[in-house]
Amino acid sequence: MLDDAFFDYLRGIDCSDVEVYSIPEGSVVFPKVPLMRVEGPVAVVQLLETPFVNLINYASLVTTNAARHRHVAGKSKVLMEFGLRRAQGPDGAISASKYCFMGGFDATSNVLAGHLFGIPLRGTHSHAYVSSYMSLDEIPDRTLRNKDGSKVCMDFVSLVKDWLCKIQAADSLRNVFGDTNQSELAAFASYALAFPSSFLALVDTYDVMRSGIPNFCAVALALHDLGYKASGIRLDSGDLAYLSIETRKVFHAIEKEFNIPGFGKMIITASNDLNEETIDALNKQGHEVDAFGIGTYLVTCYSQAALGCVFKLVEINSRPRIKLSEDVAKVSIPCKKRCFRLYGKEGYPLVDIMIRESEPSPKAGERILCRHPFLESKRAYVVPQHVEELLHCYWPGSSDKPRAELPSLVKIRSRCMQQLEKLRPDHIRRLNPTPYKVSVSAKLYEFIHYLWLNEAPVGELQ
Amino acid sequence: MLDDAFFDYLRGIDCSDVEVYSIPEGSVVFPKVPLMRVEGPVAVVQLLETPFVNLINYASLVTTNAARHRHVAGKSKVLMEFGLRRAQGPDGAISASKYCFMGGFDATSNVLAGHLFGIPLRGTHSHAYVSSYMSLDEIPDRTLRNKDGSKVCMDFVSLVKDWLCKIQAADSLRNVFGDTNQSELAAFASYALAFPSSFLALVDTYDVMRSGIPNFCAVALALHDLGYKASGIRLDSGDLAYLSIETRKVFHAIEKEFNIPGFGKMIITASNDLNEETIDALNKQGHEVDAFGIGTYLVTCYSQAALGCVFKLVEINSRPRIKLSEDVAKVSIPCKKRCFRLYGKEGYPLVDIMIRESEPSPKAGERILCRHPFLESKRAYVVPQHVEELLHCYWPGSSDKPRAELPSLVKIRSRCMQQLEKLRPDHIRRLNPTPYKVSVSAKLYEFIHYLWLNEAPVGELQ
Repeated sequence: MLDDAFFDYLRGIDCSDVEVYSIPEGSVVFPKVPLMRVEGPVAVVQLLETPFVNLINYASLVTTNAARHRHVAGKSKVLMEFGLRRAQGPDGAISASKYCFMGGFDATSNVLAGHLFGIPLRGTHSHAYVSSYMSLDEIPDRTLRNKDGSKVCMDFVSLVKDWLCKIQAADSLRNVFGDTNQSELAAFASYALAFPSSFLALVDTYDVMRSGIPNFCAVALALHDLGYKASGIRLDSGDLAYLSIETRKVFHAIEKEFNIPGFGKMIITASNDLNEETIDALNKQGHEVDAFGIGTYLVTCYSQAALGCVFKLVEINSRPRIKLSEDVAKVSIPCKKRCFRLYGKEGYPLVDIMIRESEPSPKAGERILCRHPFLESKRAYVVPQHVEELLHCYWPGSSDKPRAELPSLVKIRSRCMQQLEKLRPDHIRRLNPTPYKVSVSAKLYEFIHYLWLNEAPVGELQ
Repeated sequence: MLDDAFFDYLRGIDCSDVEVYSIPEGSVVFPKVPLMRVEGPVAVVQLLETPFVNLINYASLVTTNAARHRHVAGKSKVLMEFGLRRAQGPDGAISASKYCFMGGFDATSNVLAGHLFGIPLRGTHSHAYVSSYMSLDEIPDRTLRNKDGSKVCMDFVSLVKDWLCKIQAADSLRNVFGDTNQSELAAFASYALAFPSSFLALVDTYDVMRSGIPNFCAVALALHDLGYKASGIRLDSGDLAYLSIETRKVFHAIEKEFNIPGFGKMIITASNDLNEETIDALNKQGHEVDAFGIGTYLVTCYSQAALGCVFKLVEINSRPRIKLSEDVAKVSIPCKKRCFRLYGKEGYPLVDIMIRESEPSPKAGERILCRHPFLESKRAYVVPQHVEELLHCYWPGSSDKPRAELPSLVKIRSRCMQQLEKLRPDHIRRLNPTPYKVSVSAKLYEFIHYLWLNEAPVGELQ
């Protein structure tokens, strides 16, 4: 059906005649402002449409989702991405780890993502690990050297058992703890023997308050005897607000009862289908969670699983093109454009403005007319304190334009968090945020409407 | 921190001691019945948890979503997966194409997926293609050879223009068409010159009824003169029910006016953020759409973006294990199990039953007690007409068990559609479906509850 010459053509093309301009990664962006401007031969540029849109849509969506989770959790909490098993495919998971970090997460449980992008790794053992143990008899090597190397405890398991008796008998903890699950105790002790410096226990395999917490405390206290500091616990089911508060009380009681400074501050991690709403609800109830492990809702962007970025032809052979639609929101803004963010006196961004390439750049201190792209009556003069050009050249093709630097992931992450902090708070509040204004220059406004009238057939009402 | 010996161990492991049993791909499955049973050394099997769960969750989710879309669209419609640009990463898209086909879609627009899996490819040109043209003068080569090779039309563009005048002047179409957009006409004519046997036009770049449809008809009629049959149109915005009905009227009017048999049956494809609900709404309104192109909602599984499959340890060293939870739905069913589907007299599956490996298989004609895994009062006797064992060995490891065949994608797709047809309709109706029953044998029931009582600490109400 197809000419061989077509395949020869495909084999021969490359991106040497293409120029790509983009808003720096990690920037806050608003609808209508182009994230990228791609220039080049139409056939080559069309081939780039699908990969670009695929790669940008999900990355932007999940970064935004991560930033929203950070916003609701607050700066002081540790946020860990735990999404690999529920992500939409293996590279959906890898992208999620990368972009959640960019959006303000602290760590991932995805080891490959950690390896590829240098993201800190954090995780805990599984429920299966706990239930793979039956009893303490299954631990063959019970020796553990003191942290300072000074001496060796020959029977760490006995030390754990002694501590369990002590906390069961302690006055301040009386009536809290009965018999605990022995397979769970064996799993915790075994884990602590292997990783004495990073003992973090998942405490809900059998019963959080009656088994997981006392078992954890016994092992943590035994580790303390040998100079180690346990990391903390993870709650993965039940009423996280209540359980975290009760757990914190136990930790404080143990700190006091046995005079172990810092035991009360043991890290409490929560997981189990967390999302913005549940974290917000926890905040309102009060809780003692220090770190959140968030998976499914984060990486699949459950509350909005797709972002609708599109790729539009806006100019060809120096002739601007427009795509009309019954739905005004879908009408494309024609012309090769430059885009600027105008900042006000207080340092907040006020408005983004798009201009035709031939127009002079807006300048700080000048009075600039900013118009809504479609609604004639919506317009305002702005005198910006500072003007930032948004699109930078990241792929100059064979032109001699300078190529903007691609910063490290850590720098992009910082940019992302700084950009969000710079926004006026009402633009990012959870309920009824004020829309941020996106405008066009007076010249571009006139041109859009000239083109619109020329391209659209005139209807007849009958 | 870690012993080198650990990395040596990791380097040395393989799956030769692992056995994997699975329900055949393309089967209908129900909650609680294991999709897979994985046996082997615990450390190796634990390493398989994350990849298996990642690979199964999204694949099962999107196949189910595709099957749901097929169910609502009906058997007679052509369903095309158009999700690449909105999928969650590139391999999210590739998996989506594969599993949407498995779930009953007919084709994909993802060329790589077509290449990898042999899925039929279907697609149309873009809006950008239409707006990349300005006028008919941009078409340098206007010659087109008749389909039968008999002669060459030297000016196809003139032929198109003649047809446009004829349909504008036609009595039966009077007052329907005025001036059409010339850049759109140029794009359509150019497309038809390149692909005269598969001309399918996207008609909503400027105005469907006033420009797209008459331009399409003019080109289709010109192609008809040369022995070609146009494929049809795609609607990508506006009121799809109304536009498809109006378009069908025009096609019929042209068939009659110019005596072109079959023109009225031209394929009408619809796209634009379609999902189960919009297709259901179109069905209720009435429409003339023959084919649906579905993207975002399909591939991202927008209405439920994640499936919660988990991997649980159920037995270790021949000792069954249970994972308890405050939430009964999260309590795991212990023991290495065999699973069966019991069919009734009318050929419908009645119930799935899980038994301990040591129990005899249920047999057709025998009376079998099926118990709810957790609720004592829910139980029923079943005399199955037919019994199907669900788990088959797909990876025998180094054992000499026979390995079940991995069927082709096309066969799996047929299985999937047949399995859905075999279900009692009330199990898959959209509103309030009857839950399908999943049960355990009397022996397994007793064992679950014995283990539960033994593992769970007894609480005290205070």
